[in-house]
Amino acid sequence: MTVYEPDGSGRNAGSVIALVPAAGRGERLGADAPKAFVPVGGTPMLGLTVRGLMAAGVVDEIIVMVPAQLVEATAALLPPAAPARIVAGGAERTDSVRAGLAYAGAAAHVLVHDAARALTPPDLIARVVAELRAGRPAVVPALPVVDTVKSVDTAGRVTGTPDRSALRAVQTPQGFAADVLRRAYEHPESATDDAGLVERLGIDVHTIPGDPLAFKITTPLDLRLAEAVLDGKQVAGQ
Amino acid sequence: MTVYEPDGSGRNAGSVIALVPAAGRGERLGADAPKAFVPVGGTPMLGLTVRGLMAAGVVDEIIVMVPAQLVEATAALLPPAAPARIVAGGAERTDSVRAGLAYAGAAAHVLVHDAARALTPPDLIARVVAELRAGRPAVVPALPVVDTVKSVDTAGRVTGTPDRSALRAVQTPQGFAADVLRRAYEHPESATDDAGLVERLGIDVHTIPGDPLAFKITTPLDLRLAEAVLDGKQVAGQ
Repeated sequence: MTVYEPDGSGRNAGSVIALVPAAGRGERLGADAPKAFVPVGGTPMLGLTVRGLMAAGVVDEIIVMVPAQLVEATAALLPPAAPARIVAGGAERTDSVRAGLAYAGAAAHVLVHDAARALTPPDLIARVVAELRAGRPAVVPALPVVDTVKSVDTAGRVTGTPDRSALRAVQTPQGFAADVLRRAYEHPESATDDAGLVERLGIDVHTIPGDPLAFKITTPLDLRLAEAVLDGKQVAGQ
Repeated sequence: MTVYEPDGSGRNAGSVIALVPAAGRGERLGADAPKAFVPVGGTPMLGLTVRGLMAAGVVDEIIVMVPAQLVEATAALLPPAAPARIVAGGAERTDSVRAGLAYAGAAAHVLVHDAARALTPPDLIARVVAELRAGRPAVVPALPVVDTVKSVDTAGRVTGTPDRSALRAVQTPQGFAADVLRRAYEHPESATDDAGLVERLGIDVHTIPGDPLAFKITTPLDLRLAEAVLDGKQVAGQ
Protein backbone atom coordinates (compact mmCIF):
# COMPACT_ATOMS: atom_id res chain seq x y z
CA MET A 1 0.00 0.00 0.00
CA THR A 2 1.30 3.44 -0.93
CA VAL A 3 0.29 7.00 -0.27
CA TYR A 4 -0.63 8.31 -3.72
CA GLU A 5 -1.03 11.71 -5.28
CA PRO A 6 -4.04 12.44 -7.47
CA ASP A 7 -3.43 11.41 -11.03
CA GLY A 8 -6.72 11.52 -12.91
CA SER A 9 -5.17 9.10 -15.37
CA GLY A 10 -8.33 7.14 -15.97
CA ARG A 11 -6.76 3.83 -15.12
CA ASN A 12 -9.83 2.93 -13.07
CA ALA A 13 -12.19 2.86 -16.05
CA GLY A 14 -15.27 0.77 -15.30
CA SER A 15 -14.16 0.13 -11.78
CA VAL A 16 -15.78 0.60 -8.39
CA ILE A 17 -14.14 3.05 -6.00
CA ALA A 18 -15.04 3.32 -2.32
CA LEU A 19 -14.57 6.64 -0.55
CA VAL A 20 -14.22 6.42 3.23
CA PRO A 21 -14.36 9.81 4.97
CA ALA A 22 -12.52 9.27 8.26
CA ALA A 23 -11.59 12.74 9.43
CA GLY A 24 -14.50 13.19 11.87
CA ARG A 25 -13.83 13.65 15.56
CA GLY A 26 -14.89 11.03 18.11
CA GLU A 27 -16.08 13.26 20.95
CA ARG A 28 -19.03 11.04 21.83
CA LEU A 29 -16.69 8.09 22.22
CA GLY A 30 -14.46 10.10 24.53
CA ALA A 31 -11.60 9.97 22.04
CA ASP A 32 -9.18 12.71 21.07
CA ALA A 33 -8.31 10.98 17.83
CA PRO A 34 -10.69 10.82 14.87
CA LYS A 35 -13.44 8.33 15.61
CA ALA A 36 -12.18 5.99 12.88
CA PHE A 37 -9.02 5.39 14.91
CA VAL A 38 -10.86 4.19 18.03
CA PRO A 39 -10.16 0.46 18.46
CA VAL A 40 -12.94 -2.13 18.38
CA GLY A 41 -11.84 -5.54 19.58
CA GLY A 42 -8.22 -4.37 19.28
CA THR A 43 -8.47 -3.09 15.70
CA PRO A 44 -9.10 0.55 14.78
CA MET A 45 -12.58 0.95 13.27
CA LEU A 46 -11.07 2.12 10.01
CA GLY A 47 -9.11 -1.14 9.70
CA LEU A 48 -12.30 -3.18 10.13
CA THR A 49 -14.16 -1.00 7.65
CA VAL A 50 -11.45 -1.39 5.01
CA ARG A 51 -11.34 -5.16 5.59
CA GLY A 52 -15.09 -5.34 5.04
CA LEU A 53 -14.79 -3.44 1.76
CA MET A 54 -12.03 -5.82 0.62
CA ALA A 55 -14.00 -8.89 1.67
CA ALA A 56 -16.96 -7.84 -0.46
CA GLY A 57 -14.89 -8.67 -3.54
CA VAL A 58 -16.46 -5.91 -5.63
CA VAL A 59 -14.37 -2.84 -4.79
CA ASP A 60 -11.33 -2.08 -6.92
CA GLU A 61 -9.86 0.72 -4.88
CA ILE A 62 -10.49 2.31 -1.51
CA ILE A 63 -9.74 5.97 -0.91
CA VAL A 64 -9.55 6.94 2.75
CA MET A 65 -9.70 10.61 3.70
CA VAL A 66 -8.04 11.45 7.04
CA PRO A 67 -6.69 14.64 8.65
CA ALA A 68 -3.59 15.76 6.71
CA GLN A 69 -1.26 15.13 9.65
CA LEU A 70 -2.44 11.51 9.93
CA VAL A 71 -1.98 10.42 6.32
CA GLU A 72 1.28 8.60 7.00
CA ALA A 73 0.19 7.13 10.33
CA THR A 74 -2.98 5.72 8.79
CA ALA A 75 -1.02 3.53 6.40
CA ALA A 76 0.19 1.45 9.36
CA LEU A 77 -3.41 0.78 10.46
CA LEU A 78 -4.63 -0.81 7.26
CA PRO A 79 -4.08 -4.33 6.02
CA PRO A 80 -0.83 -4.29 3.98
CA ALA A 81 -2.63 -5.82 1.00
CA ALA A 82 -5.39 -3.21 1.00
CA PRO A 83 -5.88 -1.57 -2.41
CA ALA A 84 -6.11 1.73 -0.59
CA ARG A 85 -4.99 5.32 -1.09
CA ILE A 86 -4.84 7.54 1.95
CA VAL A 87 -5.38 11.21 1.25
CA ALA A 88 -5.95 14.39 3.22
CA GLY A 89 -9.60 15.10 3.97
CA GLY A 90 -11.21 18.40 4.88
CA ALA A 91 -12.77 20.09 7.87
CA GLU A 92 -16.29 18.90 7.01
CA ARG A 93 -17.44 15.54 5.75
CA THR A 94 -18.48 17.23 2.51
CA ASP A 95 -14.93 18.52 2.04
CA SER A 96 -13.51 15.04 2.61
CA VAL A 97 -15.81 13.38 0.09
CA ARG A 98 -14.99 16.06 -2.45
CA ALA A 99 -11.28 15.56 -1.79
CA GLY A 100 -11.67 11.82 -2.28
CA LEU A 101 -13.63 12.28 -5.52
CA ALA A 102 -10.60 14.05 -7.01
CA TYR A 103 -8.76 10.73 -6.76
CA ALA A 104 -11.55 8.62 -8.24
CA GLY A 105 -10.15 8.70 -11.76
CA ALA A 106 -12.54 7.29 -14.33
CA ALA A 107 -14.30 4.91 -11.96
CA ALA A 108 -17.76 3.98 -13.18
CA HIS A 109 -19.25 3.67 -9.71
CA VAL A 110 -18.45 5.32 -6.41
CA LEU A 111 -19.39 4.07 -2.96
CA VAL A 112 -19.32 6.44 0.02
CA HIS A 113 -19.00 4.50 3.26
CA ASP A 114 -18.89 5.71 6.87
CA ALA A 115 -15.70 4.56 8.61
CA ALA A 116 -17.80 4.14 11.77
CA ARG A 117 -19.96 1.38 10.25
CA ALA A 118 -17.11 -0.98 10.98
CA LEU A 119 -19.12 -4.22 11.07
CA THR A 120 -20.93 -3.73 7.77
CA PRO A 121 -21.37 -7.20 6.23
CA PRO A 122 -19.50 -7.64 2.92
CA ASP A 123 -22.73 -9.02 1.47
CA LEU A 124 -24.44 -5.66 1.92
CA ILE A 125 -21.62 -3.92 0.05
CA ALA A 126 -21.91 -6.45 -2.79
CA ARG A 127 -25.67 -5.90 -3.02
CA VAL A 128 -25.24 -2.13 -3.38
CA VAL A 129 -22.72 -2.64 -6.19
CA ALA A 130 -24.97 -5.17 -7.92
CA GLU A 131 -27.76 -2.58 -8.09
CA LEU A 132 -25.35 -0.01 -9.54
CA ARG A 133 -24.14 -2.47 -12.18
CA ALA A 134 -27.79 -3.14 -13.03
CA GLY A 135 -28.12 0.53 -13.95
CA ARG A 136 -29.42 2.29 -10.85
CA PRO A 137 -27.89 5.77 -10.59
CA ALA A 138 -28.08 5.92 -6.78
CA VAL A 139 -28.58 3.12 -4.23
CA VAL A 140 -28.77 3.35 -0.45
CA PRO A 141 -29.26 0.57 2.12
CA ALA A 142 -32.05 1.33 4.56
CA LEU A 143 -33.92 -0.29 7.44
CA PRO A 144 -37.37 0.29 8.88
CA VAL A 145 -37.38 2.76 11.74
CA VAL A 146 -37.71 0.97 15.11
CA ASP A 147 -38.72 3.86 17.34
CA THR A 148 -41.57 6.21 16.61
CA VAL A 149 -40.11 9.35 15.06
CA LYS A 150 -41.45 12.79 15.88
CA SER A 151 -40.64 16.24 14.66
CA VAL A 152 -40.03 18.81 17.38
CA ASP A 153 -39.62 22.57 17.65
CA THR A 154 -36.59 24.20 19.27
CA ALA A 155 -38.32 24.06 22.68
CA GLY A 156 -38.65 20.26 22.45
CA ARG A 157 -42.40 20.39 21.85
CA VAL A 158 -43.71 17.78 19.42
CA THR A 159 -44.90 19.32 16.17
CA GLY A 160 -45.84 16.13 14.36
CA THR A 161 -45.55 12.37 13.98
CA PRO A 162 -44.59 11.37 10.44
CA ASP A 163 -46.05 8.06 9.26
CA ARG A 164 -43.40 5.59 10.39
CA SER A 165 -44.31 2.99 7.77
CA ALA A 166 -42.97 5.33 5.06
CA LEU A 167 -39.73 6.14 6.89
CA ARG A 168 -36.40 4.38 6.55
CA ALA A 169 -33.14 4.78 8.47
CA VAL A 170 -30.39 5.03 5.89
CA GLN A 171 -27.03 3.30 6.22
CA THR A 172 -23.90 3.11 4.10
CA PRO A 173 -22.28 2.30 1.74
CA GLN A 174 -24.30 4.59 -0.47
CA GLY A 175 -23.57 3.86 -4.12
CA PHE A 176 -23.67 6.18 -7.11
CA ALA A 177 -22.87 6.31 -10.78
CA ALA A 178 -19.65 8.33 -10.64
CA ASP A 179 -20.90 11.14 -12.88
CA VAL A 180 -24.02 11.52 -10.72
CA LEU A 181 -22.01 11.94 -7.51
CA ARG A 182 -19.65 14.39 -9.22
CA ARG A 183 -22.59 16.52 -10.35
CA ALA A 184 -24.04 16.39 -6.83
CA TYR A 185 -20.76 17.69 -5.41
CA GLU A 186 -20.46 20.57 -7.88
CA HIS A 187 -22.59 22.59 -5.50
CA PRO A 188 -20.84 23.90 -2.42
CA GLU A 189 -23.53 22.90 0.08
CA SER A 190 -22.67 21.00 3.23
CA ALA A 191 -24.29 17.61 3.62
CA THR A 192 -24.09 14.66 5.96
CA ASP A 193 -25.99 12.63 3.41
CA ASP A 194 -24.67 12.11 -0.10
CA ALA A 195 -27.93 10.71 -1.42
CA GLY A 196 -29.65 13.93 -0.35
CA LEU A 197 -27.44 15.91 -2.72
CA VAL A 198 -28.33 13.53 -5.53
CA GLU A 199 -32.05 13.84 -4.78
CA ARG A 200 -31.74 17.60 -5.25
CA LEU A 201 -30.59 16.96 -8.82
CA GLY A 202 -33.94 15.25 -9.43
CA ILE A 203 -32.28 11.85 -9.83
CA ASP A 204 -34.02 8.78 -8.38
CA VAL A 205 -32.44 7.28 -5.27
CA HIS A 206 -33.37 3.66 -4.71
CA THR A 207 -33.34 1.92 -1.31
CA ILE A 208 -32.38 -1.70 -0.76
CA PRO A 209 -32.70 -3.63 2.52
CA GLY A 210 -29.94 -2.65 4.94
CA ASP A 211 -28.44 -4.81 7.67
CA PRO A 212 -28.58 -4.28 11.46
CA LEU A 213 -24.83 -5.03 11.61
CA ALA A 214 -24.14 -1.95 9.47
CA PHE A 215 -24.97 0.24 12.47
CA LYS A 216 -22.90 3.36 13.06
CA ILE A 217 -20.59 3.23 16.08
CA THR A 218 -21.23 6.58 17.71
CA THR A 219 -21.71 6.13 21.45
CA PRO A 220 -19.96 4.01 24.11
CA LEU A 221 -23.00 1.73 24.01
CA ASP A 222 -22.51 1.18 20.27
CA LEU A 223 -18.89 0.34 20.98
CA ARG A 224 -19.98 -2.25 23.52
CA LEU A 225 -22.31 -3.83 21.00
CA ALA A 226 -19.54 -3.94 18.39
CA GLU A 227 -17.18 -5.63 20.86
CA ALA A 228 -19.88 -8.19 21.73
CA VAL A 229 -20.45 -8.97 18.06
CA LEU A 230 -16.72 -9.45 17.45
CA ASP A 231 -16.42 -11.65 20.57
CA GLY A 232 -19.25 -13.81 19.25
CA LYS A 233 -17.54 -14.16 15.87
CA GLN A 234 -14.29 -15.25 17.46
CA VAL A 235 -16.11 -17.85 19.54
CA ALA A 236 -17.96 -19.07 16.45
CA GLY A 237 -14.70 -19.31 14.52
CA GLN A 238 -12.86 -21.41 17.11
CA MET B 1 -48.22 -9.99 44.44
CA THR B 2 -51.79 -10.88 43.56
CA VAL B 3 -53.81 -11.12 40.41
CA TYR B 4 -56.45 -8.43 40.88
CA GLU B 5 -59.80 -7.67 39.35
CA PRO B 6 -60.65 -4.12 38.32
CA ASP B 7 -62.05 -2.11 41.16
CA GLY B 8 -62.16 1.52 40.16
CA SER B 9 -62.23 2.34 43.85
CA GLY B 10 -60.10 5.43 43.60
CA ARG B 11 -57.58 4.24 46.16
CA ASN B 12 -54.78 5.36 43.85
CA ALA B 13 -55.67 9.04 44.09
CA GLY B 14 -52.64 11.19 43.25
CA SER B 15 -50.52 8.20 42.46
CA VAL B 16 -48.45 7.18 39.48
CA ILE B 17 -49.47 4.03 37.62
CA ALA B 18 -47.31 2.32 35.02
CA LEU B 19 -48.98 0.31 32.26
CA VAL B 20 -46.76 -2.31 30.62
CA PRO B 21 -48.31 -3.87 27.50
CA ALA B 22 -46.62 -7.26 27.19
CA ALA B 23 -48.88 -9.26 24.92
CA GLY B 24 -46.92 -8.66 21.70
CA ARG B 25 -45.37 -11.58 19.85
CA GLY B 26 -41.62 -12.00 19.59
CA GLU B 27 -41.30 -13.27 16.01
CA ARG B 28 -38.18 -11.24 15.24
CA LEU B 29 -36.44 -12.79 18.23
CA GLY B 30 -37.37 -16.27 17.04
CA ALA B 31 -39.58 -16.83 20.07
CA ASP B 32 -42.98 -18.49 20.24
CA ALA B 33 -43.77 -16.82 23.53
CA PRO B 34 -44.60 -13.11 23.80
CA LYS B 35 -41.43 -11.08 23.41
CA ALA B 36 -41.60 -9.92 27.02
CA PHE B 37 -40.97 -13.50 28.17
CA VAL B 38 -37.71 -13.89 26.24
CA PRO B 39 -34.86 -14.10 28.76
CA VAL B 40 -32.07 -11.54 28.84
CA GLY B 41 -29.13 -12.57 31.01
CA GLY B 42 -31.34 -15.30 32.50
CA THR B 43 -34.27 -13.04 33.42
CA PRO B 44 -37.35 -12.56 31.24
CA MET B 45 -37.42 -9.05 29.77
CA LEU B 46 -40.63 -8.31 31.61
CA GLY B 47 -38.96 -9.06 34.94
CA LEU B 48 -36.15 -6.60 34.18
CA THR B 49 -38.63 -3.97 33.03
CA VAL B 50 -40.70 -4.28 36.21
CA ARG B 51 -37.54 -4.12 38.34
CA GLY B 52 -36.53 -0.91 36.60
CA LEU B 53 -39.93 0.65 37.28
CA MET B 54 -39.65 -0.33 40.97
CA ALA B 55 -36.09 0.99 41.23
CA ALA B 56 -37.16 4.41 39.98
CA GLY B 57 -38.96 4.94 43.31
CA VAL B 58 -41.73 7.02 41.73
CA VAL B 59 -44.23 4.39 40.57
CA ASP B 60 -47.00 3.33 42.95
CA GLU B 61 -48.43 0.47 40.97
CA ILE B 62 -47.51 -1.47 37.84
CA ILE B 63 -50.19 -2.99 35.65
CA VAL B 64 -48.91 -5.63 33.24
CA MET B 65 -51.12 -6.70 30.35
CA VAL B 66 -50.38 -10.21 29.01
CA PRO B 67 -52.32 -12.77 26.96
CA ALA B 68 -55.24 -14.06 29.04
CA GLN B 69 -53.83 -17.59 29.24
CA LEU B 70 -50.54 -16.28 30.69
CA VAL B 71 -51.91 -14.16 33.54
CA GLU B 72 -51.18 -16.76 36.21
CA ALA B 73 -47.81 -17.80 34.76
CA THR B 74 -46.63 -14.21 34.63
CA ALA B 75 -46.95 -13.82 38.38
CA ALA B 76 -44.07 -16.27 38.84
CA LEU B 77 -41.79 -14.15 36.64
CA LEU B 78 -42.01 -10.94 38.60
CA PRO B 79 -40.20 -10.00 41.79
CA PRO B 80 -42.43 -11.17 44.70
CA ALA B 81 -42.40 -7.66 46.19
CA ALA B 82 -43.51 -6.00 42.95
CA PRO B 83 -46.55 -3.73 43.40
CA ALA B 84 -47.94 -5.26 40.25
CA ARG B 85 -51.30 -6.35 38.89
CA ILE B 86 -51.31 -8.76 36.00
CA VAL B 87 -54.33 -8.49 33.73
CA ALA B 88 -55.43 -9.84 30.37
CA GLY B 89 -54.41 -7.66 27.43
CA GLY B 90 -55.89 -7.59 23.96
CA ALA B 91 -54.98 -8.56 20.44
CA GLU B 92 -53.46 -5.18 19.61
CA ARG B 93 -51.25 -2.96 21.72
CA THR B 94 -54.05 -0.39 21.77
CA ASP B 95 -56.42 -2.97 23.23
CA SER B 96 -53.89 -3.85 25.93
CA VAL B 97 -53.34 -0.24 26.97
CA ARG B 98 -57.08 0.33 27.09
CA ALA B 99 -57.51 -2.81 29.20
CA GLY B 100 -54.81 -1.60 31.59
CA LEU B 101 -56.38 1.85 31.86
CA ALA B 102 -59.52 0.23 33.27
CA TYR B 103 -57.43 -0.78 36.28
CA ALA B 104 -55.79 2.59 36.78
CA GLY B 105 -58.29 3.76 39.39
CA ALA B 106 -57.93 7.43 40.23
CA ALA B 107 -54.23 7.64 39.48
CA ALA B 108 -53.12 11.17 38.71
CA HIS B 109 -50.45 10.14 36.24
CA VAL B 110 -50.08 7.18 33.93
CA LEU B 111 -46.88 5.90 32.37
CA VAL B 112 -47.00 3.57 29.37
CA HIS B 113 -43.78 1.58 29.07
CA ASP B 114 -42.67 -0.99 26.49
CA ALA B 115 -41.81 -4.31 28.13
CA ALA B 116 -39.04 -4.67 25.54
CA ARG B 117 -37.13 -1.63 26.83
CA ALA B 118 -35.82 -3.87 29.58
CA LEU B 119 -32.68 -1.88 30.42
CA THR B 120 -34.35 1.51 30.80
CA PRO B 121 -32.46 3.38 33.54
CA PRO B 122 -34.60 4.14 36.61
CA ASP B 123 -33.36 7.73 36.40
CA LEU B 124 -35.12 8.19 33.05
CA ILE B 125 -38.39 6.97 34.55
CA ALA B 126 -37.99 9.40 37.46
CA ARG B 127 -37.36 12.30 35.08
CA VAL B 128 -40.56 11.59 33.14
CA VAL B 129 -42.57 11.56 36.38
CA ALA B 130 -40.91 14.76 37.58
CA GLU B 131 -42.10 16.55 34.45
CA LEU B 132 -45.64 15.24 34.97
CA ARG B 133 -45.64 16.40 38.58
CA ALA B 134 -44.47 19.80 37.36
CA GLY B 135 -47.69 20.04 35.35
CA ARG B 136 -46.85 18.77 31.88
CA PRO B 137 -49.83 16.88 30.42
CA ALA B 138 -47.71 14.59 28.23
CA VAL B 139 -43.98 13.81 28.36
CA VAL B 140 -41.93 11.50 26.13
CA PRO B 141 -38.20 10.70 26.26
CA ALA B 142 -36.51 11.13 22.90
CA LEU B 143 -33.05 10.98 21.35
CA PRO B 144 -31.57 12.59 18.25
CA VAL B 145 -31.81 10.39 15.19
CA VAL B 146 -28.42 8.79 14.37
CA ASP B 147 -29.04 7.68 10.80
CA THR B 148 -30.33 9.93 8.08
CA VAL B 149 -34.06 9.29 7.73
CA LYS B 150 -35.77 9.23 4.37
CA SER B 151 -39.34 8.84 3.27
CA VAL B 152 -39.92 6.22 0.59
CA ASP B 153 -42.74 5.13 -1.70
CA THR B 154 -44.00 1.55 -1.85
CA ALA B 155 -41.38 0.73 -4.53
CA GLY B 156 -38.55 1.75 -2.20
CA ARG B 157 -37.80 4.95 -4.11
CA VAL B 158 -36.81 7.91 -1.93
CA THR B 159 -39.46 10.61 -1.90
CA GLY B 160 -37.80 12.98 0.55
CA THR B 161 -35.25 13.60 3.27
CA PRO B 162 -36.82 15.28 6.31
CA ASP B 163 -34.54 17.67 8.20
CA ARG B 164 -32.84 15.36 10.67
CA SER B 165 -32.09 18.13 13.16
CA ALA B 166 -35.83 18.45 13.86
CA LEU B 167 -36.42 14.70 14.25
CA ARG B 168 -36.32 12.66 17.44
CA ALA B 169 -36.55 8.92 18.06
CA VAL B 170 -39.08 8.44 20.82
CA GLN B 171 -38.63 5.96 23.67
CA THR B 172 -40.71 4.99 26.70
CA PRO B 173 -41.94 5.39 29.37
CA GLN B 174 -44.30 7.94 27.93
CA GLY B 175 -46.05 9.83 30.71
CA PHE B 176 -49.49 11.43 30.77
CA ALA B 177 -51.92 13.13 33.05
CA ALA B 178 -54.39 10.28 33.56
CA ASP B 179 -57.39 12.21 32.24
CA VAL B 180 -55.49 13.13 29.09
CA LEU B 181 -54.61 9.50 28.29
CA ARG B 182 -58.19 8.40 28.99
CA ARG B 183 -59.52 11.01 26.55
CA ALA B 184 -56.98 9.88 23.95
CA TYR B 185 -58.19 6.29 24.28
CA GLU B 186 -61.88 7.18 23.94
CA HIS B 187 -61.39 6.96 20.19
CA PRO B 188 -61.16 3.48 18.75
CA GLU B 189 -58.12 4.07 16.53
CA SER B 190 -55.18 1.73 16.59
CA ALA B 191 -51.86 3.25 17.58
CA THR B 192 -48.35 2.08 18.35
CA ASP B 193 -47.67 5.47 19.86
CA ASP B 194 -49.69 6.77 22.78
CA ALA B 195 -48.35 10.31 22.47
CA GLY B 196 -49.63 10.39 18.90
CA LEU B 197 -53.20 9.91 20.15
CA VAL B 198 -52.71 12.75 22.62
CA GLU B 199 -51.34 15.03 19.89
CA ARG B 200 -54.56 14.49 17.93
CA LEU B 201 -56.45 16.00 20.87
CA GLY B 202 -54.45 19.19 20.35
CA ILE B 203 -52.62 18.75 23.65
CA ASP B 204 -48.91 19.63 23.85
CA VAL B 205 -46.51 16.71 24.06
CA HIS B 206 -43.14 17.64 25.52
CA THR B 207 -39.90 15.74 24.86
CA ILE B 208 -37.13 15.25 27.41
CA PRO B 209 -33.71 13.70 26.73
CA GLY B 210 -33.94 9.93 26.43
CA ASP B 211 -31.21 7.42 27.22
CA PRO B 212 -29.42 5.04 24.83
CA LEU B 213 -29.95 2.22 27.37
CA ALA B 214 -33.71 2.56 26.95
CA PHE B 215 -33.41 0.93 23.51
CA LYS B 216 -36.10 -1.51 22.43
CA ILE B 217 -35.01 -5.14 22.26
CA THR B 218 -36.43 -6.24 18.92
CA THR B 219 -33.79 -8.17 16.98
CA PRO B 220 -31.23 -10.85 17.93
CA LEU B 221 -28.58 -8.11 17.68
CA ASP B 222 -30.47 -6.02 20.26
CA LEU B 223 -30.57 -9.08 22.49
CA ARG B 224 -26.81 -9.47 22.19
CA LEU B 225 -26.31 -5.83 23.17
CA ALA B 226 -28.59 -6.26 26.18
CA GLU B 227 -26.65 -9.34 27.31
CA ALA B 228 -23.37 -7.45 26.93
CA VAL B 229 -24.68 -4.55 29.01
CA LEU B 230 -25.85 -6.90 31.77
CA ASP B 231 -22.51 -8.77 31.73
CA GLY B 232 -20.74 -5.44 32.15
CA LYS B 233 -22.94 -4.53 35.11
CA GLN B 234 -22.24 -7.81 36.85
CA VAL B 235 -18.51 -7.34 36.37
CA ALA B 236 -18.75 -3.78 37.68
CA GLY B 237 -20.69 -4.97 40.73
CA GLN B 238 -18.24 -7.68 41.77
